[in-house]
Amino acid sequence: MPSSETRQRIERRLDELQEHSAREEPGSVDRYYSSWRGYYPPEEAGSERDLFAICVATVDGQVFEAGDSTVGFPLHSLSKVFAYGLALADHGREGVLEHVGVEPSGDAFNSLRFDERNMRPFNPMVNAGALATTALVRGSDAEGQLARILATMRTCAGHDGLEADLATYEAEVAGADRNRGTAYLMRSLGMLHGDVEEILGLYLRQCSVSVTCRDLAVMAGTLAHGGVNPLTVRAALPRKHVRDVLSIMHTCGMYDYAGHWAFDIGLPAKSGVSGGIMMVIPGKMGVAVYSPGLDVYGNSVRGVQVCSEISDRLGLHIFASEDEDAILTPAEPVA
Amino acid sequence: MPSSETRQRIERRLDELQEHSAREEPGSVDRYYSSWRGYYPPEEAGSERDLFAICVATVDGQVFEAGDSTVGFPLHSLSKVFAYGLALADHGREGVLEHVGVEPSGDAFNSLRFDERNMRPFNPMVNAGALATTALVRGSDAEGQLARILATMRTCAGHDGLEADLATYEAEVAGADRNRGTAYLMRSLGMLHGDVEEILGLYLRQCSVSVTCRDLAVMAGTLAHGGVNPLTVRAALPRKHVRDVLSIMHTCGMYDYAGHWAFDIGLPAKSGVSGGIMMVIPGKMGVAVYSPGLDVYGNSVRGVQVCSEISDRLGLHIFASEDEDAILTPAEPVA
Amino acid sequence: MPSSETRQRIERRLDELQEHSAREEPGSVDRYYSSWRGYYPPEEAGSERDLFAICVATVDGQVFEAGDSTVGFPLHSLSKVFAYGLALADHGREGVLEHVGVEPSGDAFNSLRFDERNMRPFNPMVNAGALATTALVRGSDAEGQLARILATMRTCAGHDGLEADLATYEAEVAGADRNRGTAYLMRSLGMLHGDVEEILGLYLRQCSVSVTCRDLAVMAGTLAHGGVNPLTVRAALPRKHVRDVLSIMHTCGMYDYAGHWAFDIGLPAKSGVSGGIMMVIPGKMGVAVYSPGLDVYGNSVRGVQVCSEISDRLGLHIFASEDEDAILTPAEPVA
Amino acid sequence: MPSSETRQRIERRLDELQEHSAREEPGSVDRYYSSWRGYYPPEEAGSERDLFAICVATVDGQVFEAGDSTVGFPLHSLSKVFAYGLALADHGREGVLEHVGVEPSGDAFNSLRFDERNMRPFNPMVNAGALATTALVRGSDAEGQLARILATMRTCAGHDGLEADLATYEAEVAGADRNRGTAYLMRSLGMLHGDVEEILGLYLRQCSVSVTCRDLAVMAGTLAHGGVNPLTVRAALPRKHVRDVLSIMHTCGMYDYAGHWAFDIGLPAKSGVSGGIMMVIPGKMGVAVYSPGLDVYGNSVRGVQVCSEISDRLGLHIFASEDEDAILTPAEPVA
Repeated sequence: MPSSETRQRIERRLDELQEHSAREEPGSVDRYYSSWRGYYPPEEAGSERDLFAICVATVDGQVFEAGDSTVGFPLHSLSKVFAYGLALADHGREGVLEHVGVEPSGDAFNSLRFDERNMRPFNPMVNAGALATTALVRGSDAEGQLARILATMRTCAGHDGLEADLATYEAEVAGADRNRGTAYLMRSLGMLHGDVEEILGLYLRQCSVSVTCRDLAVMAGTLAHGGVNPLTVRAALPRKHVRDVLSIMHTCGMYDYAGHWAFDIGLPAKSGVSGGIMMVIPGKMGVAVYSPGLDVYGNSVRGVQVCSEISDRLGLHIFASEDEDAILTPAEPVA
Repeated sequence: MPSSETRQRIERRLDELQEHSAREEPGSVDRYYSSWRGYYPPEEAGSERDLFAICVATVDGQVFEAGDSTVGFPLHSLSKVFAYGLALADHGREGVLEHVGVEPSGDAFNSLRFDERNMRPFNPMVNAGALATTALVRGSDAEGQLARILATMRTCAGHDGLEADLATYEAEVAGADRNRGTAYLMRSLGMLHGDVEEILGLYLRQCSVSVTCRDLAVMAGTLAHGGVNPLTVRAALPRKHVRDVLSIMHTCGMYDYAGHWAFDIGLPAKSGVSGGIMMVIPGKMGVAVYSPGLDVYGNSVRGVQVCSEISDRLGLHIFASEDEDAILTPAEPVA
Repeated sequence: MPSSETRQRIERRLDELQEHSAREEPGSVDRYYSSWRGYYPPEEAGSERDLFAICVATVDGQVFEAGDSTVGFPLHSLSKVFAYGLALADHGREGVLEHVGVEPSGDAFNSLRFDERNMRPFNPMVNAGALATTALVRGSDAEGQLARILATMRTCAGHDGLEADLATYEAEVAGADRNRGTAYLMRSLGMLHGDVEEILGLYLRQCSVSVTCRDLAVMAGTLAHGGVNPLTVRAALPRKHVRDVLSIMHTCGMYDYAGHWAFDIGLPAKSGVSGGIMMVIPGKMGVAVYSPGLDVYGNSVRGVQVCSEISDRLGLHIFASEDEDAILTPAEPVA
Repeated sequence: MPSSETRQRIERRLDELQEHSAREEPGSVDRYYSSWRGYYPPEEAGSERDLFAICVATVDGQVFEAGDSTVGFPLHSLSKVFAYGLALADHGREGVLEHVGVEPSGDAFNSLRFDERNMRPFNPMVNAGALATTALVRGSDAEGQLARILATMRTCAGHDGLEADLATYEAEVAGADRNRGTAYLMRSLGMLHGDVEEILGLYLRQCSVSVTCRDLAVMAGTLAHGGVNPLTVRAALPRKHVRDVLSIMHTCGMYDYAGHWAFDIGLPAKSGVSGGIMMVIPGKMGVAVYSPGLDVYGNSVRGVQVCSEISDRLGLHIFASEDEDAILTPAEPVA
């Protein structure tokens, strides 16, 4: 359980972030996303561009909210994390590794480059890998698979309201040609098996699950808490596979900005092109930010800024030492 | 300072590893390396294939050695870590980021694929990025640059015996066409500036610096200790850039196996094609293994095995929780 | 009309080719194809490996046959030529160029690399380009499009017996994942429009049309005769688009061996992975060879050998001069 | 010898072309080239943008000139044709094919993609292939090789004035990093042997040879005349390798526009980024155009326009029939 001091730092910091971030323009937004308008350029931005929420859920069960924390948005790529955790629970590390790698590739999320040495997608966070992962989830049929994915998400979020949003799903289906093409290519290469349309439909429904920023923070908090929801104290994912999920989030979670994130912020995180980012501080808390202005990588501009500030101010980078600011004079090397 | 209990675990574990690993055949060796014979296939292996050392240097200044810990071998890619740290000390994060990215690419070490969005090598651990990094090291000329790189390495190792090995250097120069071609391409793309042959020569000399497994463990221990050599208590690299170095080692240190390593072993590490691997347990210790049988990625087969066992048995994966083995029953999802 | 001397040379040559080629083993066969067994390795070859036919149809309406000239086999990629001619007749050069390029790419037939400068497939002979071409054929629906493609093929062949073979079609559908994936990717990139499954089905039916070697020779003869069937004197394709078709066959007709063919044999040709090759000697004759042993590029091994001999012996290379063998002493350059 | 009618058509056509082309703005110029300023954008164009010449040399020894036919410019890539012919004369087809392919690749001239199946550059017209070709030219040393290349070029041009231009050479050397990088990579892959700097220097000197548009027309005329200079009646290249040279020009001569050229213009041609294009009408004449405004592919904008008009008006496309314009009604296919 975090100390009272930690809680106070979080509260103080969230208030500060709310105030100054909401006042300032986000940096270089490439495009916006809204679940009812899809993607649109900055110059066409309406009221949804001002949506902005920051939530924190600590492992001792406290939740802090700021801004539009109850507005719903689809999980999109954020869903890949939970499907991956469930596939690991179903098949174990080796079982999943046969079908999906764990190697960051520097490619965009929709890349068609595969790990040719092992004939599998590079990792479960690119779309190709996410399709293969979703196909691995056990279930008697797609409905059964979806039910299990939803059950995992709901346990992580701590309530049963999570549902796939039909309108989002239909919009996703209409724009699914690249994913569909990827899936058929994968099947032609022996990387995917079974009914492609069914796998694709399942994947798109998984992506369409609607959450609030508060939900997302609790889901991240569950990962921070070893797979046990800190509010309900129900286990959602096996602890050892939470380790795996965090490892993948750390190296592959932020699209082709993942390496920069690991370098700069240094915490496991995942973003979705709907504008949400969740970040996990293991053993401490989950953080979620929602702001639909995206950068060129597909990450929420404000989300990156807020997470960067949190990591920076609280010294949370996994390779930061407690006395990071202590000044040590390096040995004067020969000039 | 590690607890007495930790020290005892290390000693006990090293002894065990020595005994059983030396008895067993290494797994699937793709090729061997010796500094006097270069690379050769397993069927031509001579006495050097049996070279095997494991060393540990703790942050409180204790060194543990097992096996051939005093045999010298060239740093090769291991040198990239120290040049990168020095370049960061010289130019700061932003200054280095202008020229070298921090994104793992899933490519082999000699890849010609660049981060085209930012027109720079993907990261400092692929050869292209290492060339750009070395070029950034300050110095009045190549001799001055080399002197500063050597000084950093020597402070990390804690003694002044580290030198570039002339025979290794000459062998490297003879086989440097791909690196040379890469460097000229980079200059044609504006990613490298100045005298290519001088940069290449400097880089190859840096790669030719000879160390023992004990040296390497102390160098890793210096990184584990925030940049301060735990034996001499002299600072080799600024603490904040040790964070950067560890971040890069974590995502990019093990060639195109880096993601798998981060997933499975979960600690910052770097390997060289001479058969050495160094692994850093921040705040605790540095580990080095030397065994010249390499896998298809170019990593020491025994090195990977030993590091995996150490991480596994001691529960050192950065995303492992202390009570990893505690059995938690996940909520039963809908079948 | 070819001279009597030409006819005699053809007859004599065909006899010779029949005799010695049928005796000799074909060169390095990579795999065999039969319409009832699909692809199989050389060591599993049955009676169909001995199928071998050579046919010639001259522009004055004579047909010469040797070997198994009445055995049916599917057109496969040979069909691309006729669909391309029809698309050109329907939309003109510029109309087709908007959707399909004319650039050889050095890639295999199933490549996913596109002409990114113009956002279109490189040429109509790779599968991606063939899909785009087929989609361009006019018709009220897929049935209407197929009827028009069949009508063109039948006019070229000079009889109405040409039909899509249902068994071949069903086998093609079962193995169509790569083409299907390619088609969906193309639609996601704006390179293909409409109902992908319908376009794919149409394309696969076009590929399944069964011909004999004699048919193929007459079809090639029609192209040699400016688009007018030399037996029926009915026009199948506009003369100016026959030029276009021959241009594409010349640069792109033989998969990623096309450049070598243009260099060595120097005549427009097209092959199919069913073992057929057709070659056009403009203004003179069409040649067809059928032999189902394929090389690594997917071209009939015997087909390449026979066409090479015909071009060579008759001096048909488009850049050969009549007195090619005349010995001219080059000016002695400075040594 | 061309008929008197043909000569009159040429004269009349050249006059027309001169008049109307010089009046009109060239189409979309991407950049200009001058041997003293290098490349510069259209908005900085000075007097050299107006340079414009068209020359024709017939196989019976007549030369027609229009415009700035005596202005010198470097051969650049045009030189590749003559070095390739000489390498073929030195080693034969098979000897050269071992080192340089004949496959168009759809890539830009400076591509780093190689024919991996055969481990060689795709063709002799991309820079990688040109480097390998030049290295094949026999000679006791680079001077001897250059002397033989120059001798071939001089015999083709019909006078001994052709020389490498020192200023051009020095500018080329200064900007040769990509070629140098390519050459070292090739050597690392076993595609190039010997002293890379020497090969590169030889190649750049070959590229620096200065010609006039009249020279270039006679050189093209020599290729049209089976390798025998139509003015001096001296043989420059063996007839059978002129066939090879024309084959390669036909499929690979116009950079990544080569396929379009073969489709549209249908004659062997080669361009250089200095603004020259030579086109060969086998058995008839050579055509040269010089105009330094280049399109995105690196081809002279006016050069392409003029060659297209010549081919079109004179019906010279290799797959055009004499009565191309005869109207043939295609069989009415089923609607």
